Amino acid sequence: MTGLVSETTTTTEMTTTDCWAVLRELELGRLAYRCGEDVHITPVNYAVDGNRVVFRTAEGEKLAALRDYPDVVFEVDESFDDAATSVIVRGRASELHGEEALMADQLRLRPWVPQPAKHHVIAIEVASITGRSFSLAKPWLHIVN
Amino acid sequence: MTGLVSETTTTTEMTTTDCWAVLRELELGRLAYRCGEDVHITPVNYAVDGNRVVFRTAEGEKLAALRDYPDVVFEVDESFDDAATSVIVRGRASELHGEEALMADQLRLRPWVPQPAKHHVIAIEVASITGRSFSLAKPWLHIVN
Repeated sequence: MTGLVSETTTTTEMTTTDCWAVLRELELGRLAYRCGEDVHITPVNYAVDGNRVVFRTAEGEKLAALRDYPDVVFEVDESFDDAATSVIVRGRASELHGEEALMADQLRLRPWVPQPAKHHVIAIEVASITGRSFSLAKPWLHIVN
Repeated sequence: MTGLVSETTTTTEMTTTDCWAVLRELELGRLAYRCGEDVHITPVNYAVDGNRVVFRTAEGEKLAALRDYPDVVFEVDESFDDAATSVIVRGRASELHGEEALMADQLRLRPWVPQPAKHHVIAIEVASITGRSFSLAKPWLHIVN
């Protein structure tokens, strides 16, 4: 059984094209960023605009942290019964203003959660994008079944 | 329509009991940790053991970073058509050895992805656990439909 599991599990580096396809397809990701010595992670509803990942946020601790530590990591993934893909973006976050911020209204970006009002539009300029797909062997299912 | 959307979208702080229930139910989360000045995020197959989140890792950059920066954040979430929940754990990561590491084999923790060999068992002692559930209004669906 162990041999069988080994044979059926693989990790594959995704192509850049495939990474972008997954990033464009999904709409909920996780933003990881620094705030002083701490690391924070927060789920974010996002949209892709050209080379950028765009999301809204309210004034607050997150926005202040992004101003101080703009280099962030953003992750999206999807998993199925026997496979998963994870795409990781690195880039610099900055606030959009004026016309650029208004253009975010054209994206799939109306805030899912309207309170507190999310007036600030943040864009992560994608510096690198990588992804892996996993086949998920679950040996314990063989034990259970 | 806008009024309708506002009325149907809410954010709810989850109880600690509900947070633990979600954490126990899921098996794929995202670990965020520091490595020097950078923040890293990586998907992790995990199991809950008492007050700890346990996962395997191979020797490498991640393991070295966790030794230098053991205070980590771990996130799990699930989303449905109209709702999502996100649970965030803060805690200190340390490597398990000897009997404790062997006990991890009793958990739902055989590595999904067997190569490189994941010999190191890491436990995050949960210092805090918080969660939010969102109702996900998607105004653009009203526009599209």
